[in-house]
Amino acid sequence: MPKLRYGVAYYDEYMPYERLEQDIAMMLEAGINVVRIAESTWSTHEPQNGVFDFTSVDRVLDAMHAAGIEVIVGTPTYAVPAWLVKEHPEVLAVTAKGPGRYGARQIMDITSPAYLFHAERIIRKLIGRVAKHPAVIGYQTDNETKHYETAGDNVQLQFVKYMREKYGTLAEINNRFGLDYWSNRINSWEEFPSVVGTINGSLGAEFARFQRELVTKFLAWQVGLVNEYKQPGQFVTQNFDFEWRGYSFGVQPSVDHFAAAEAFDIAGVDIYHPSQHELTGTEISFGGDMARSLKQSNYLVLETQAQAFPHWTPYPGQLRLQAFSHLASGANMVAYWHWHSIHNSFETYWKGLLSHDFKPNPVYNEAKTIGRDFRELGSQLADLRKNNKVAVMVSNEALTAMEWFKLPDGKNYNDVVRWLYDELYRMNVECDFIQPSCPELSRYSLIVVPALYAVDDEPLERLNEYVRQGGHVVYSFKSGFADETVKVRTAVQPGIISEACGLSYSLFVTPHEVRLKAEPVVAAHEEALAPEADLTVSTWMELLTPTTAEVLFRYDHPHWGEYAAVTRNRHGQGSATYIGCMASSAVVQSVLKLAVQDSGLLGPEQELSFPVIVKTGINAANRIIRYIFNYSEQAVPVTYRHEASEELLTGRFLAKGETFELEPWGVMILGALPE
Amino acid sequence: MPKLRYGVAYYDEYMPYERLEQDIAMMLEAGINVVRIAESTWSTHEPQNGVFDFTSVDRVLDAMHAAGIEVIVGTPTYAVPAWLVKEHPEVLAVTAKGPGRYGARQIMDITSPAYLFHAERIIRKLIGRVAKHPAVIGYQTDNETKHYETAGDNVQLQFVKYMREKYGTLAEINNRFGLDYWSNRINSWEEFPSVVGTINGSLGAEFARFQRELVTKFLAWQVGLVNEYKQPGQFVTQNFDFEWRGYSFGVQPSVDHFAAAEAFDIAGVDIYHPSQHELTGTEISFGGDMARSLKQSNYLVLETQAQAFPHWTPYPGQLRLQAFSHLASGANMVAYWHWHSIHNSFETYWKGLLSHDFKPNPVYNEAKTIGRDFRELGSQLADLRKNNKVAVMVSNEALTAMEWFKLPDGKNYNDVVRWLYDELYRMNVECDFIQPSCPELSRYSLIVVPALYAVDDEPLERLNEYVRQGGHVVYSFKSGFADETVKVRTAVQPGIISEACGLSYSLFVTPHEVRLKAEPVVAAHEEALAPEADLTVSTWMELLTPTTAEVLFRYDHPHWGEYAAVTRNRHGQGSATYIGCMASSAVVQSVLKLAVQDSGLLGPEQELSFPVIVKTGINAANRIIRYIFNYSEQAVPVTYRHEASEELLTGRFLAKGETFELEPWGVMILGALPE
Amino acid sequence: MPKLRYGVAYYDEYMPYERLEQDIAMMLEAGINVVRIAESTWSTHEPQNGVFDFTSVDRVLDAMHAAGIEVIVGTPTYAVPAWLVKEHPEVLAVTAKGPGRYGARQIMDITSPAYLFHAERIIRKLIGRVAKHPAVIGYQTDNETKHYETAGDNVQLQFVKYMREKYGTLAEINNRFGLDYWSNRINSWEEFPSVVGTINGSLGAEFARFQRELVTKFLAWQVGLVNEYKQPGQFVTQNFDFEWRGYSFGVQPSVDHFAAAEAFDIAGVDIYHPSQHELTGTEISFGGDMARSLKQSNYLVLETQAQAFPHWTPYPGQLRLQAFSHLASGANMVAYWHWHSIHNSFETYWKGLLSHDFKPNPVYNEAKTIGRDFRELGSQLADLRKNNKVAVMVSNEALTAMEWFKLPDGKNYNDVVRWLYDELYRMNVECDFIQPSCPELSRYSLIVVPALYAVDDEPLERLNEYVRQGGHVVYSFKSGFADETVKVRTAVQPGIISEACGLSYSLFVTPHEVRLKAEPVVAAHEEALAPEADLTVSTWMELLTPTTAEVLFRYDHPHWGEYAAVTRNRHGQGSATYIGCMASSAVVQSVLKLAVQDSGLLGPEQELSFPVIVKTGINAANRIIRYIFNYSEQAVPVTYRHEASEELLTGRFLAKGETFELEPWGVMILGALPE
Repeated sequence: MPKLRYGVAYYDEYMPYERLEQDIAMMLEAGINVVRIAESTWSTHEPQNGVFDFTSVDRVLDAMHAAGIEVIVGTPTYAVPAWLVKEHPEVLAVTAKGPGRYGARQIMDITSPAYLFHAERIIRKLIGRVAKHPAVIGYQTDNETKHYETAGDNVQLQFVKYMREKYGTLAEINNRFGLDYWSNRINSWEEFPSVVGTINGSLGAEFARFQRELVTKFLAWQVGLVNEYKQPGQFVTQNFDFEWRGYSFGVQPSVDHFAAAEAFDIAGVDIYHPSQHELTGTEISFGGDMARSLKQSNYLVLETQAQAFPHWTPYPGQLRLQAFSHLASGANMVAYWHWHSIHNSFETYWKGLLSHDFKPNPVYNEAKTIGRDFRELGSQLADLRKNNKVAVMVSNEALTAMEWFKLPDGKNYNDVVRWLYDELYRMNVECDFIQPSCPELSRYSLIVVPALYAVDDEPLERLNEYVRQGGHVVYSFKSGFADETVKVRTAVQPGIISEACGLSYSLFVTPHEVRLKAEPVVAAHEEALAPEADLTVSTWMELLTPTTAEVLFRYDHPHWGEYAAVTRNRHGQGSATYIGCMASSAVVQSVLKLAVQDSGLLGPEQELSFPVIVKTGINAANRIIRYIFNYSEQAVPVTYRHEASEELLTGRFLAKGETFELEPWGVMILGALPE
Repeated sequence: MPKLRYGVAYYDEYMPYERLEQDIAMMLEAGINVVRIAESTWSTHEPQNGVFDFTSVDRVLDAMHAAGIEVIVGTPTYAVPAWLVKEHPEVLAVTAKGPGRYGARQIMDITSPAYLFHAERIIRKLIGRVAKHPAVIGYQTDNETKHYETAGDNVQLQFVKYMREKYGTLAEINNRFGLDYWSNRINSWEEFPSVVGTINGSLGAEFARFQRELVTKFLAWQVGLVNEYKQPGQFVTQNFDFEWRGYSFGVQPSVDHFAAAEAFDIAGVDIYHPSQHELTGTEISFGGDMARSLKQSNYLVLETQAQAFPHWTPYPGQLRLQAFSHLASGANMVAYWHWHSIHNSFETYWKGLLSHDFKPNPVYNEAKTIGRDFRELGSQLADLRKNNKVAVMVSNEALTAMEWFKLPDGKNYNDVVRWLYDELYRMNVECDFIQPSCPELSRYSLIVVPALYAVDDEPLERLNEYVRQGGHVVYSFKSGFADETVKVRTAVQPGIISEACGLSYSLFVTPHEVRLKAEPVVAAHEEALAPEADLTVSTWMELLTPTTAEVLFRYDHPHWGEYAAVTRNRHGQGSATYIGCMASSAVVQSVLKLAVQDSGLLGPEQELSFPVIVKTGINAANRIIRYIFNYSEQAVPVTYRHEASEELLTGRFLAKGETFELEPWGVMILGALPE
Repeated sequence: MPKLRYGVAYYDEYMPYERLEQDIAMMLEAGINVVRIAESTWSTHEPQNGVFDFTSVDRVLDAMHAAGIEVIVGTPTYAVPAWLVKEHPEVLAVTAKGPGRYGARQIMDITSPAYLFHAERIIRKLIGRVAKHPAVIGYQTDNETKHYETAGDNVQLQFVKYMREKYGTLAEINNRFGLDYWSNRINSWEEFPSVVGTINGSLGAEFARFQRELVTKFLAWQVGLVNEYKQPGQFVTQNFDFEWRGYSFGVQPSVDHFAAAEAFDIAGVDIYHPSQHELTGTEISFGGDMARSLKQSNYLVLETQAQAFPHWTPYPGQLRLQAFSHLASGANMVAYWHWHSIHNSFETYWKGLLSHDFKPNPVYNEAKTIGRDFRELGSQLADLRKNNKVAVMVSNEALTAMEWFKLPDGKNYNDVVRWLYDELYRMNVECDFIQPSCPELSRYSLIVVPALYAVDDEPLERLNEYVRQGGHVVYSFKSGFADETVKVRTAVQPGIISEACGLSYSLFVTPHEVRLKAEPVVAAHEEALAPEADLTVSTWMELLTPTTAEVLFRYDHPHWGEYAAVTRNRHGQGSATYIGCMASSAVVQSVLKLAVQDSGLLGPEQELSFPVIVKTGINAANRIIRYIFNYSEQAVPVTYRHEASEELLTGRFLAKGETFELEPWGVMILGALPE
């Protein structure tokens, strides 16, 4: 029977005094049914080279098992012991900033043989010891693994071999990467210069891609080791995380999540987000959609915030809202980082469910209601399936390329991704994430493509074909501009996708006091664009000339007024919309709404919008489960537009067309009634 | 007979042409009676290793003596000669940023044997030569000494030994410093990693404490050397300085002033402060209170500004106001840095009493009036004693800990200290500074404790006992939070002081649109809080729940409104006030005024307030000396509330209740008449 | 017959596919008659040490020649090949930031023998090969050459020898540089410390002067090599550039343009400037006046923008306006960087005349009209001579000194230069640039001297004499303050020039809420200062006391109101104006207008002002050529005040007193009719 997991990270090793029994009693009271241990404490488990001490692991496993709490065991490799660094300083990554310095976590050269040798041994010792313990349900390899910018001589050597393997000859490399420029031409393999100083974005982006492959390989290697010990029913996961802007913001630059996820049984993520008056649920949805898309299945939220920082301590009700929002995106587990606030070191103010005093507190008390509801509704809410008809296409390659070629005001790829994603979220259009290599575009009716700046020809041609066959695409500016080596295409822009988009452009400028003028097709569509909508253009504008496309928006400017800003082109059975500039939320929403309508996807969900968020799925019993959230400080009236349902938390029935009031930061969970 | 010293730093070595006789003539005209020499010119006095040349010292001593000007001789060790660095590059401090680079002053490893050997030799040569010269009244060791972040391998080695000495075992260290976290556990002494990369604030703070001890030892070592030569009647001092924010702002992070001051005969300081329209006198008072507290006696202002920078050049009257402000805090000497503006190098625009042209100028001309008044009133104004009943408790340990754990908006410990101190200053409450280790709390009626974040149990228990016995304490937020190793206490916060404060808290948040609501006890006290007072909360707020405390202010917020913000608790014979958030000047003043009143200290001084500043003391003849200053651009009417007095600058008599007008940037000095 | 050159930088090596014939066809269509090649592609021409491949040079020369397009060949030395760095890492400059890192251009130690050896060989091979090719009209040595902050041990060694050569003894150096300060005294040559860490601005400035001499020598060495091959009729030039603030802003800090220009046959520059709504023409005028002044002759604009960045892509009309503005300042050639936008690497978004698609585009189309007009009017417009009576005196030494002693708000020397220059430009006063060493001051009626902060006595005395003999000078604040070793003068300020200026000052302050009060002589001069003019003082103010000078402006301030701010002094036959503070555009313009009037230079040009810009010269046929530009978005009515002329672009005649309308971003070119 499907089951929800409600968990915490637990560090017996960090405890200032013996707490295990008390902690477990408090966990049980809160409905905690899983803990995550061991990923941060190598130096405790291997106090000296080859000397092992798993006392804390053993006693936690036994005690948890006795209490009926399951355990996920992490491989403790993302923070290296002092003795290892003292014996083998080369385990620290050499980066563009120079040699590493001991102190923090995540500072290793993940290709260092000394590191790999010792990592393998502690993994085998630990996993071999715990695998058959009845408390253990699964494993996490390492934690928030990245490449840590490793770029020392040994890594450079591997990179040169990678380049030779991939491109064959220096002539090919010089040509594709444009190395004649500024005398960067490489004329013998021996002289291949270290990439850390390069000013060639093509070469820099290739190195970033190589570094991401190091992560994929490193994780697959760890999974291989753990799999040797894994017992039937156990799983292996990784704690993926996102571009960090003080919270989980966007696509992770240092890891190819899709490639890295292949080795794992189930995807795991950490999701941290603004809270208090800034809580919108967007990051929970974004991170959840990404995690679910990695293996097209349910996922684990291995870390999210309990109290966390002073600016995140949740208002009453928000902890519940957050927990159910994770479930609504397809999570099967919600775990807090972490159980108790830590009394020393770096994350002292990243507070857990318990404050430093280990006493019940308002946040813990709210968690108890979540634990209760997870237990009672788990069989209904777990294993939620989605059948989204909209996908957002994202790409590490485009992301890196745009780091090298930033937008004029410093905005980057993820700003563009979130600019589009957030509007989908706000208008209650659920979506998956796909990569350009996704072979099954036809699963979707609408594909949104933010700034697919650097990509090879094939996916663009596939997208053209997709449109021809009846698909709908919304591109943003800069899509299709450069190829997979970040060489700008020599074709008239936007290059290959011009065919489906029906337009061309040669000039692009930085907007200064430029506004948009809606063409009748948009202006007439009252629902799409409010008369008072913000029409200013920011950041970037391409001066579009339609060939076959119809214009949705034009620029309002004495010199650029002849050019189109947003266009839509009927092509074959489908359509391609092109947004040539960064426009306001209102404009983007109008364009996306047209595209959703064109795709035949406009439904009752779009009658509601942020702060009222609706998420839908099918549970294991094939029942429609629908969540309605109020992401605001005010109670909001909602008219229910869906099939008659049962409100699962209260047992109340709700008829189509009924109007109810959703309390501030409130959540309603509905199970459809058989018709 | 008590005497005031009026001085300048004098650098014969820097002169572009022969000036000595002319300079002395101009000094005499300005009433300069002491010069400070030699602390910056090692390379002149020892041009080559072991070759000495004290020509400039000899001639200055002789000429000054002939003119009746006294001399303080500095040991020239804070700026090392080029030859020493070339011969022994290891004299430069290796810091977290890497090896040192020659050029500036204050770049040495103060533990380097090569440095110490050569420093000792020049000290012995110089001090041995001048000690019996009749012009010499005292010595200054080094200058503004700090540890210059020295952290090379040799310093690290000393630190490890210090740790073993202090904590005994690694088990103890691992436990107290929480080193299991992120695999930082140290399992053998050999592997003890360099602290420069640590992310463990407990370890980092301990290293900072160790570095401060290096300074204490280094200065005591210099004093020991100088004492071997010191003649009867001569003194040894140090030029202590303060946290620098472009001016003297707060507690010095790199030196334990109280510990370092022990070796000296008399405390000396430099005090630089905003001027022109920004002159408030706060830094003069703050630095003076600190300097006076170090040895609970009078002190020397070894450096303060004459013209200094373009933004500090004083308005007419300000140089006088400043000079007497120093005296009013207990200074026995006011000396300018420096006599003449320097024609080359780093401090060309840090101008002295003379401009680069050595001609009389408006500032020099004003100094002449100060020299005259110092001479005429010296016997009355020197050796001023204070008997303050209010103390502010400050702590290097709390300061360092809060560098590691900054307030959310980047404010640091000194921001909190000044936030409270400045209000005391503005309401004319004079105070001493004490450290947590101060054994005689009972000397004071009221102790103000800003953010005593990291401290061992004993002082907190002593403060509890102090309250029980009738003392009054005002704590700010974060007090008592962590112990002396910066480990957060596991007790319910605010831990040990909860007993006296009668409250607890578990959550703390960053304020967003939060205001305070005054409870009737404050709101009714009209004098305390004006109706239009600013009630916004900034930076930090703890959600307080009183147990026995009465609430003074509550938070005004939809979610945090149930919590208290400021409380007062009657405990034993005394009271403890707790300010749980950063509030406005007006709110702090209302809270402090209540505490002053509770302490029975409210007096006529509090009927005046900034910009009218009153400072009081008892002179050597046991006469009450009272200064009244006008720190503003406007003349202000003042009603005199004290005993009948003689205005010392004019000879006029002033009766209690009389009203007079104090001119802009004016000063009045009163000597009480025998009753 | 005089001829205009219209050119582009052309990189056959960067082409993504074979383009030569197509490109030449498009060039011809646009009137391009010169290309610049080869300066960036050493690694292509010498793919391995001693292996040469000039295929691309040969074929471009042949094809261009066949098409009648001339070629300027660059020596390819400013970007080093990877093989050279791998073989001889010491070719990379060691700077204050440490060793160099391969990747970018302009990273070499221009004194490295390994670099010089290989540079000489490629220069000889390339220039020897092309010199007799009929397409080649001249050479550019290196590109935008600077010293790249080279400061390694070898450079330091040369610097010490330079110091000994220049100053003779250490005693002299210690004295002049004030090295006693902070124990910086150098007492033996062996211990001369590396200058990279110095805090002594005098020493730092001397090192910068030494570094600039390295550039002069390096360029002269290259010219010497090229001259060995140069054929009759060919020229050698250098591409000088300016202080870069995202565009060409001011005097180049790293090169003494006047000294470096001596070796060359003709001066060349690159000029990049704001565009679109920020296009003012000021930088075109500034850079042009400087370039023309270097050799007091016409010059080449070797690089300027075509499309360039998204914020520079020109509005329709602006490309023409820019091209003719260059001519109006005396350029004989306007060349774009570059022909085609590059598909990879650092400058992908620095677009050329063609976009990445190589297709005609609006900017290219506008260039075609320029090419046509250049061809048709070349004989009239080329070789324009100026006979300016106003000069602006600029100095690398003053610039560097003010880097060490910055103005309080961070403004630097070029901010002061542009503050004055821009007002001259706006009021249509054309000027030359001169250095303090200029022997022929009497060529000018008015010399404007911005912040001549550090300079030896002789030029100041020459300026005094110039005034005595009837010249007029306008000094800004800080002029004359320090000598050539950046030692502040010990005389009463402003030192030597006090004689001509008739004033003195001892204090200077940072303005806070200070305004100016115009004295009657200015206030009455209605034309000079509008009643609503901005009178605020910013950045810096000297408190001036006139001796013989009359006051133009006084400070309006409670404490500084007694001091003068701007004065004018009749001295001998001339006058010296002194501006003691940073004042508004309006105030500066009023002061400059008085000075222009005093100098007898006020003419009809001053009846027009920005955005209407007038530039005048005499062509080879001794005909007056006059350009009138409209640097604005609006059409402006202009009353023509000069002699009857022919409008060269239209053939229309224009009478004196006629009024016409100049279109937005418009240009009118007039050739005077014989009277």
